[in-house]
Amino acid sequence: GHYLVCGYGRVGRHVTQELIEQDLRVAVIDSRPEALAGLKISGSSAIVGSASDEAVLTAAGILHAKGLVACASSDAENLLIVLTARLMNPEITIIARAVDEASEPKLKKAGATRVVLPYQMAAIRTTTLLLRPAVADFLWEAAHIGGFELFLEQIPLRPASCLIGQTLAQAQLRNRFNVTILGCRLPDGTLSVRPTAETVLDAGKELIALGTYAELQAFARLASGEERGAAAS
Amino acid sequence: GHYLVCGYGRVGRHVTQELIEQDLRVAVIDSRPEALAGLKISGSSAIVGSASDEAVLTAAGILHAKGLVACASSDAENLLIVLTARLMNPEITIIARAVDEASEPKLKKAGATRVVLPYQMAAIRTTTLLLRPAVADFLWEAAHIGGFELFLEQIPLRPASCLIGQTLAQAQLRNRFNVTILGCRLPDGTLSVRPTAETVLDAGKELIALGTYAELQAFARLASGEERGAAAS
Ligand SMILES: [Ca+2]
Ligand SMILES: [Ca+2]
Repeated sequence: GHYLVCGYGRVGRHVTQELIEQDLRVAVIDSRPEALAGLKISGSSAIVGSASDEAVLTAAGILHAKGLVACASSDAENLLIVLTARLMNPEITIIARAVDEASEPKLKKAGATRVVLPYQMAAIRTTTLLLRPAVADFLWEAAHIGGFELFLEQIPLRPASCLIGQTLAQAQLRNRFNVTILGCRLPDGTLSVRPTAETVLDAGKELIALGTYAELQAFARLASGEERGAAAS
Repeated sequence: GHYLVCGYGRVGRHVTQELIEQDLRVAVIDSRPEALAGLKISGSSAIVGSASDEAVLTAAGILHAKGLVACASSDAENLLIVLTARLMNPEITIIARAVDEASEPKLKKAGATRVVLPYQMAAIRTTTLLLRPAVADFLWEAAHIGGFELFLEQIPLRPASCLIGQTLAQAQLRNRFNVTILGCRLPDGTLSVRPTAETVLDAGKELIALGTYAELQAFARLASGEERGAAAS
């Protein structure tokens, strides 16, 4: 599965770079050949054309893509891209950028999975930096950057895992893997925060875990059932 | 202490609204009287003029303000605002918005405490939403919104607190307050993540704590020394 980036402006360039850094394949669509001229990153392909044109989306491989980012220059353009893409692929994850807050419900109605509002985000982050700088640093780093080698990751629990059926207390994840469980996402998408010692590890749940990359990888292998692991002592 | 918002565009409007919602006083500066006409929020005052003019900044009360947000329409304007404000008040927290990444080091050199890059932020968040949606939701909510009534807060440890000198294990914060300690900021500003049971609660440290509003308030009262609290059992 690859990703489509529609619009190669400031946001599109950064998104493409982030995805490529995570070893993912990207197809970039923009109607301005001169904008795409700067795109020379291995793992990415460039398509000149309108991202709301079905033939262009087909050429970019929308039918077997995992996700699409609509970050063209106007909310109206993004709305048309989202609507077209959603009709062609009901399963794909679509993230749309909006300038105006009033566009958010429209983009969601058109089929966007999530909407990002850069100016609103910038304002909220500015306020947090002003009033609670340590919180702002902690979260942004852990969520997005991994600057102090600590990451938050979502770890799915698969039926084959030996953890299934245990409570968090029984699984002893802190002792065995040094990971901290901060939340649990249920199969219906609702997020439960601060699961207790009695929370049962059912297949289909996803745990929000804080740890180093190596710790999270070890835990993820057990949760996926790839590895059986020693029983908790 | 009040806050100065320089530039009443998209970011400035949101920042003003966020600060007012947190019961803080705001002085907004913009050279366009028509932009400020929409500002009719109690707790805020509007000043028509250039925010890089010393007389205007003096009128807005920069000498006794706690923070300033530079979110005028161009990076060059923000640079001039930051430079002027920093010369007038060496202590104030200054958050500057930048469109171009290349402006970040210049704004910091001019005196900005922190720089917010809306397009880069939007791209990083877009990628996280695409690849790790549960993590993106969890952090943004806990850090900025409190949507599920769970907050991250930075709690300073004051010399008068009965917690000073105890280890995290001895303080039993999880049992007594139901708060989870995720990090610890040292007096020199460095952030230590995942403090251990042996971490000592020294005066001047700040703890990054996850909990409900009421739980964090109760813990903060003890950490400030306002309340003595029962000894940990
Ligand atoms: Ca990194
Ligand atoms: Ca709230």
